[in-house]
Order: sequence, then structure tokens, then C-alpha cells
Amino acid sequence: MIRKDINNIEAYKPGKPIQEVERELGLKNVIKLASNENALGPSLLALKAIKKGLEGIFRYPEGTCFYLKKKLARCLKVSESNLIFGNGSDELLDIILKTLWEPGAEVLTSDITFVEYKICGTINGFVVNCVPLKDFKFDLAAIKDAITPKTKVLFIANPNNPTGTYVNQREVIDFLASVPENILVVFDEAYIEYAEAKDFPDLVPLIGKKNIAILRTFSKIYGLAGLRIGYMIAEKSFVECAERVRQPFNVNSLAQIAAEAALGDKAYVRKTLKLMRQEKKFLYRTFASLGIWFKESATNFIFVRMDTDTRKVFGQLLSKGVIIREMSQYGLNNYARITVGTRKENLRLIKALKEATE
Amino acid sequence: MIRKDINNIEAYKPGKPIQEVERELGLKNVIKLASNENALGPSLLALKAIKKGLEGIFRYPEGTCFYLKKKLARCLKVSESNLIFGNGSDELLDIILKTLWEPGAEVLTSDITFVEYKICGTINGFVVNCVPLKDFKFDLAAIKDAITPKTKVLFIANPNNPTGTYVNQREVIDFLASVPENILVVFDEAYIEYAEAKDFPDLVPLIGKKNIAILRTFSKIYGLAGLRIGYMIAEKSFVECAERVRQPFNVNSLAQIAAEAALGDKAYVRKTLKLMRQEKKFLYRTFASLGIWFKESATNFIFVRMDTDTRKVFGQLLSKGVIIREMSQYGLNNYARITVGTRKENLRLIKALKEATE
Repeated sequence: MIRKDINNIEAYKPGKPIQEVERELGLKNVIKLASNENALGPSLLALKAIKKGLEGIFRYPEGTCFYLKKKLARCLKVSESNLIFGNGSDELLDIILKTLWEPGAEVLTSDITFVEYKICGTINGFVVNCVPLKDFKFDLAAIKDAITPKTKVLFIANPNNPTGTYVNQREVIDFLASVPENILVVFDEAYIEYAEAKDFPDLVPLIGKKNIAILRTFSKIYGLAGLRIGYMIAEKSFVECAERVRQPFNVNSLAQIAAEAALGDKAYVRKTLKLMRQEKKFLYRTFASLGIWFKESATNFIFVRMDTDTRKVFGQLLSKGVIIREMSQYGLNNYARITVGTRKENLRLIKALKEATE
Repeated sequence: MIRKDINNIEAYKPGKPIQEVERELGLKNVIKLASNENALGPSLLALKAIKKGLEGIFRYPEGTCFYLKKKLARCLKVSESNLIFGNGSDELLDIILKTLWEPGAEVLTSDITFVEYKICGTINGFVVNCVPLKDFKFDLAAIKDAITPKTKVLFIANPNNPTGTYVNQREVIDFLASVPENILVVFDEAYIEYAEAKDFPDLVPLIGKKNIAILRTFSKIYGLAGLRIGYMIAEKSFVECAERVRQPFNVNSLAQIAAEAALGDKAYVRKTLKLMRQEKKFLYRTFASLGIWFKESATNFIFVRMDTDTRKVFGQLLSKGVIIREMSQYGLNNYARITVGTRKENLRLIKALKEATE
């Protein structure tokens, strides 16, 4: 009865939740540097807004995120008709794929990037082709060369997860000039707020001019991962079609309320950015002194390589109550992805790392 | 670029939200009897639990609804491996269809039932066949006769939305004996808690014995429509496959916390049931005296027929701040679906109905 390709669908391996580690290992005060959540916790303005909206949870949510959409359109200087929201960006991947689906259609992405592009593509009946990274960065030239007549959509995480690298404005513009017009190029900008380099692409002005879509999320710098809300910026006619395949009440009402408040919490975003700048420098220095190779990151996580199998290191750190992400799912058995925490968390990480690698 | 059958996908027409009616018509104190939400508002235990869990919203949710699943399995006396959760039952329809998909596969359901079966089937590339109701009730004999070699899944809303009717234990058992084993029969029991008749089917004991799946939700009697959480009870191996196509963080963390609390709020459920029993009787009497035909309902809404076009009545009621659901999307232009409210709401409904039909 089950679909024949069910075994081709890999299971996504999430970062281990704190509660899970605590109950399984009988630990307390576990810290999680595994899922790139905001180290400062949630925005207080978001919490306040949720408390005010609580009484309404017995009503179905606004299907289109009416108020949030108005506010976000003003912030981004786009039309409301360029925006659609999802139950996290994950759901927007599903919506994009459903909107573009045809038999034999292909997804093209990279081999070491957010695994949901591949998983979601396979689930939706697409053939998924992956191109290697080049120096841990999206290799746009190789992607261009891998395009086939069946390619419908490209997924480019920028900055890339798990490597923290990015392709710059110049590279993206050149690339887009060479991609056939009937292919949608999706830039997943989940971490864009952390990407402060001057040459980081500003793609919003290309909406309606190039065949691109931009994904963003409230799960990362806006601190709402638990509430599940992301959005897509795209050309109006594509958004209209995407609206047809979107489920009618896909974004819960508290997520809508919280996102609207978090969007206005500029002090919280500034404070997060300041902390991340400072703590990335601190970790870079410390990793260097420990002989741990790392890639400079445009995000709130750092991609590292060790002299030893990181699955072992992962287990050792876990037993000390520190959760990181090992990279064996990509065949990168000496690599790990570590979320940048508060100074206190980073000191615990380093202490545990020293003990593990001694 | 867009899929070729995009125009075959109808848009779901939700009940108008209160805020929308208030801002569009410049009204205050609008009441909504359009989406079958719990008239009592949310469970206070759920609100309390959410407040306690608020600080955690910056973390990704538990992917599998770990704690809620444990509690629900105990309540239902099933194994945890028989349960999977969705972003509302809507998402579970999508998950079921993705799990069963193959080229040319068909969905079979009724023509006057929850429209998402049809919409979601079409979106997922299924051919959708619909059989008429019989006396506003699912016609199981006709459904059996409409099965083809391509039929993969049947959707049966029990009680049915929008008609409020149900098929009983005897009818379901006989029906299941005649359905080929390679077809999944999905019973959508969104309103089961309101169905108090002795012959209403108890299908949980059939899990693992018959090829069925049961959908339930926290949106209706549990008062959490805004948070988006539903669940499926099914055979273990089917749940395992469904877990593969489920998105990793599909249910937000506050929904999980609130559902666990609402599940334990037996007083709230009892109070809701008592109110609904009493108010249904009140509305039946009043509709009869107004010459409005209605179908006795096993739910918290009533399906009615008027002597006039209900689209007109809908507009007239709207202008008086009362939102109901007209049924023109089913081609039933003289029918409406009205959610049973509190006595105060029902009195406003009746006053507005009298004025509209005079």
C-alpha cells in the first residue's frame, strides 16, 4: 500500500533536545549548541504579545497572516502580494515544490547543505541532484553546469548551513544571468540577519526581475523556532499559485502575533548581533589555540574539523551535558557544527572539548 | 514554470474571521458561528500550561511530540507507535497522501464533506472521485461501488462536516468487511467528542486489525484551533512510513504543551458537552418554530435549509455582526452551517435570522 520509494526518503536528524539528553543521561543543566537557536532566548516583546493574544487560541488563525504581512511588507519595502508565510521555512519548501511539480522534474542543490532540500524534494516526487561544495562554499559554476532540461528549481542556502559560508552579490548576479528563465532559484536566507559583510547579496530588489524566491525565518535571530514561522518573498504570480497549495491555516495564531512583535524588537536583534560578533571572535581564537580547524562564519554557528572522529567527540560532550551537531550524515566524520552560545555556554563547551580531545 | 493542473486546485474558503468582519464592515462585538470552535473559549488549564512554557519558544519543538504522545497513548489505550501528530488534521491529510502516493492513484470520498480531502488530494497529484451523500449522510454502499483498482484511500468524515450526520458501528463494520485490504480507510473523527449516541462507532480497537486510520484534533472540543494540532491513530508500520514524510518540526511547542493540558481538563470537556446538548435543543426548537429545516447533529454545528438563498442571508447576518457559513461552494444555495454558540450568541443569531427572513 505504501509508496514504492519510501526507503529513499531519509529521516531528518534533528539536534538532540535538552530534555531528551537530560532524561536519557540523567543529567541536569544541559546546554544545547546544536540547532542555531538565538543564544539570548526569546524576545521579551514577543512574550508580552503572546500573553496578550492567549485568549484567542480557540479561534482558527488568520489564514494569510493578515496583520503580520502588512507589517513585514513595510519593513521589507515589498508589496504584500510578494509575501507568503509557512509553518517554518520547511513548509515553504514543500509549498514551492508542490507549486512547481511535474513528472520527472528535478531539484538541484548542493551535497553539503540543509538536508531538507533533498528530503522534501524526494517526498514530493522530484529527482534530486546534488553538486559538491567548493572550499565549503556553494559552487555556482558547477551548479550551472549541472542544470538539465528537467531542472525546475535550485535551492541555495545563503549563508550555507552547515558550513557558514556565503556567495556574494557579484557571484549571485553573474550566476543568475546564466540560469535559464524557466528555473526558479530559491535563496534560503535563514541566517541573513547574521551576515554582516558588505558584499553579502541584497536580493529583494531582484524580485519580479529575476526568477528567484527568497526564504527567511523567525526561527533564528528572531528567537521563535518553537513557534514555527517562516516566509517567502517572490514574484506576485508565483505567490498566488503558492497560496493555492498552502494549507488554509498553516501558521498558528501565536506565531503570527509573536513574529509581529519580534520584528519590531530592534534592540533584541542588535543585542544578539553584538553578542555573536564578540563570541565568534572568542571561539575562533580558542579553536585556533586548540588546533581545531574552523571556517569563518556568516551565521551564528561555526563549522569545525577535528583530528578525531567527531561522533566520538559528540558522545563525550553529550556525557558532559553539551550538545553539538556531528556531521556524519554528510559523510564528514571529522567535522562538527557548533552553535555560538553565550560566553558562559562557550566556556563550558571549550572545557568539555579540552577534556574530550586531551 | 507552474504545474499544469494549478487551476484544478480550488481555494479553501475559511469562515470569515471576526477581526476581518469588524474592520471591513466597521462593526464591533461581532460573533462567529462559522468555524465550529468551542463556544466556551480555551481551556484555562491549557492557558496556564502555555504561560509556563513560554520561555522555551526560542528552542525547536520536540519533533515527535514526546510527552504529549505518552499521555495520549495512555488516554486512548493504544501504543505510542500508533500515534503521529500534525499541524492540524489538515497536515495529516497531506502526510497520508504523501505516504500512499503513486502515479494515477485515486482518492474516494463524498461530494458534501470536508473540502480539504478533495483539495489536498488534487494538490498531491491524486485523482479525486466523489460520491453523493444519501439523506445528507455518507453513503457507504455507493462508496463501496465506486472503488476502482486505482483507489488508494477513502476519506470518511464521521460525524460528517458540514451535515452533522454519522454512520454507526454496524454500518462501518459491514462496510469495512467489503473494502479491499489494499485500500486505507481514513475516518476523520474531528467531532467525535460531541457524538454521544450509543451506536457511534468505536474504531480504536480495529487499529491493526482493519486497514484504517483515525484522525482527531485539538481544534474542536479541546479549544485549540489557533494552535494547530491534530493526530492520527493507525497501524504501527503505517505510522512509521508517515513519520518519514512528516516534516521534522511540524507541531509547534506551545501546541504540544497546550494539548497535553487540555487533554487533562475533563471538567472543561464536560462543561462544553453540557452546553452543546442544551443549546442544540434550544436551536432545534427555535429553528422549527421559524420554519427552518435542520438536520439533527452529532456535532457542535447544525446544517440548515432555508426558503431563501443563504448567500443573501449570510450577507444580512454579517451586516448585523453574526458570521455563519453559507454552502454555495457545494452548490447548496439554500443551505447553511451554523456553529452552536453560547445562549447569548444563539439569541443574537436568532434575532438576526428573524430580521433577515422577515
